[in-house]
Amino acid sequence: MKVEGKDMRPIWFDEVKKTVQVIDQRFLPHEFIIKDLNSVEDVIFAIKEMVVRGAPLIGATGALGVYVSLVQENNRGADNDYLEAECHRLKDARPTAMNLFWGVDRVRDAVLKEIDYNGRVRAGLSEALEVVEEEAVNCREIGRHGLSIIQDMSRKKGGEAVNILTHCNAGWLACVEYGTATAPIYTAFDRNIDVHVWVDETRPLNQGARLTAWELGKHGINHTVITDNAGGHLMQHGMVDLVMVGTDRTTRAGDVANKIGTYLKALAARDNNIPFYVALPSSTFDWSITDGIKDIPIEDRDPDEIRHVQGLCHGKVQSVLVPPETSPAANPAFDVTPARLVTGFITEKGICNANEADIMALFPEKRMA
Amino acid sequence: MKVEGKDMRPIWFDEVKKTVQVIDQRFLPHEFIIKDLNSVEDVIFAIKEMVVRGAPLIGATGALGVYVSLVQENNRGADNDYLEAECHRLKDARPTAMNLFWGVDRVRDAVLKEIDYNGRVRAGLSEALEVVEEEAVNCREIGRHGLSIIQDMSRKKGGEAVNILTHCNAGWLACVEYGTATAPIYTAFDRNIDVHVWVDETRPLNQGARLTAWELGKHGINHTVITDNAGGHLMQHGMVDLVMVGTDRTTRAGDVANKIGTYLKALAARDNNIPFYVALPSSTFDWSITDGIKDIPIEDRDPDEIRHVQGLCHGKVQSVLVPPETSPAANPAFDVTPARLVTGFITEKGICNANEADIMALFPEKRMA
Repeated sequence: MKVEGKDMRPIWFDEVKKTVQVIDQRFLPHEFIIKDLNSVEDVIFAIKEMVVRGAPLIGATGALGVYVSLVQENNRGADNDYLEAECHRLKDARPTAMNLFWGVDRVRDAVLKEIDYNGRVRAGLSEALEVVEEEAVNCREIGRHGLSIIQDMSRKKGGEAVNILTHCNAGWLACVEYGTATAPIYTAFDRNIDVHVWVDETRPLNQGARLTAWELGKHGINHTVITDNAGGHLMQHGMVDLVMVGTDRTTRAGDVANKIGTYLKALAARDNNIPFYVALPSSTFDWSITDGIKDIPIEDRDPDEIRHVQGLCHGKVQSVLVPPETSPAANPAFDVTPARLVTGFITEKGICNANEADIMALFPEKRMA
Repeated sequence: MKVEGKDMRPIWFDEVKKTVQVIDQRFLPHEFIIKDLNSVEDVIFAIKEMVVRGAPLIGATGALGVYVSLVQENNRGADNDYLEAECHRLKDARPTAMNLFWGVDRVRDAVLKEIDYNGRVRAGLSEALEVVEEEAVNCREIGRHGLSIIQDMSRKKGGEAVNILTHCNAGWLACVEYGTATAPIYTAFDRNIDVHVWVDETRPLNQGARLTAWELGKHGINHTVITDNAGGHLMQHGMVDLVMVGTDRTTRAGDVANKIGTYLKALAARDNNIPFYVALPSSTFDWSITDGIKDIPIEDRDPDEIRHVQGLCHGKVQSVLVPPETSPAANPAFDVTPARLVTGFITEKGICNANEADIMALFPEKRMA
């Protein structure tokens, strides 16, 4: 996607430096910093500290992390136990995003097919880059399928702007290109359909205000930042036509783990008869579980992420403490929206209803024996 | 209530200086500043800029504002047109809180009964102070009635901590004493019932994180600050026993205008079978309307309140800009929770269900002819 006229992705392999590089998303939109990932330690830090974030991008970073484990200093890439241990460390970086386990396992499996060290390095890089490319293609396909939903709404409104509410950042910064929730929006915009996006600021880390607003602005898409509190009111007053969000893990029955607060928007959408769509590549499905509230582990993050808010102050990125120094805080990072509140899933294979039978009809290869 | 061992209210009349004084709530919890209100201009600034906020306190401030109009420089307090114009200016300061109109009108009516200037000043001060005292008594009564709800839950839990979620600040800082939503909590705590409060930070102005957390902390009540996004997740996991909030205006049919985001919590409470109570003095009822979504005007505040977040940085209260400089924002300050989502109202007269018949049974004098 374009940043100041230049094509960018949030992660790439620099062929000259032979290094994995990422945009450091912690300081956007106020500082644009590129970071090298030279060791598994670097990769884990990047995932844990949210230098990179978003399920598909975490998957791509985990995939390239396996390659990094093979080329980092003092590596023992021919040793299967070593490789397995490094893969475990990578998968432990964050507990909720499905794509991380999927990306790491896929590259590990490709690497294990090779015996000698150089073959492993080649296989690791090639499989990881394939994961990256596939995620880009998946997002493009999500955009192609999701377009029809926006197109229909635009027709229904006689060409008036379609108002789409989104939570967190499920844009290209969370993926490789296009994004998941934003892919239909970018696709519609590129076809001259009038769209306007309500951007939930998405506390505590403000990925909506910082990242989604930045992405949409750079692409020239009309958007308005709102507090996470405002969506229900806007829906009550007919100011939201569609909700589109991403997901970090979705069960085979359609329960959706996504950034904390998503569930509240799904409830409001249902209460106001507004379609609530979840966009995801199939790598985000956890085919092994059905009950999301029971079975998806929800990451508890550092309470200081709530207590301190980061932004630009006197030309520098700084943090301010909001509550009293002595007040404790709790920071669950995700919640689970039950399938019953989801209108449909937009995947690279098409759109389906949020129930096991319909999901399985789209992905028959995942049917349980 | 106690601040560093000293009894405090958020507004008072200083008998020595003959001045209305308030705690400037804009800089809490990091700076404790007391401000004089010497003119209607000062009073309007205090209400508009949220030096004071919270429906009952806005009512008390409006009431004392009428007195201030009589004693400010260049006043023409014996002139009815002048008085009427000043009262209009006061009532225009904020559009949603019912108590403002109620407080101003009540003192104006008392003043108009007097003809000579000195009589008016005396009547204005005495009626305004009566409003202030009545609101304190109302809140104490709300606490007394609401106590039974917490007591019952405590018994049901065998004495385990009762977890109460609240949104915004409906504490003593929003009232005169005790608060509305917090009154039952303070009362329960003072009777050694184990309580723990989930404090919604309440974006954009963080009245929960800044004010409710400060109040509860000063009183020694267990509390945890959470993002506005987190409540639904906590409810899904059995971590919330009750929701208690205040209101800025409630219709005779029980639709509740309160800080933006309240509606989302009410939806989540309903979805998880958790009681959702609204605590209010009768001065917050708007007896003239029934349909809150249609008829309660919702204030749109400055979008910069969303874009900039204030807190402590290097020992000073400063603001940081969160989204891109160029991204617009929208800032509706309240939403309306339909009566169907409200379990009950806790008033100074007792508890009732959220429907017109039951509200009217508690306040028969408000029955329409």
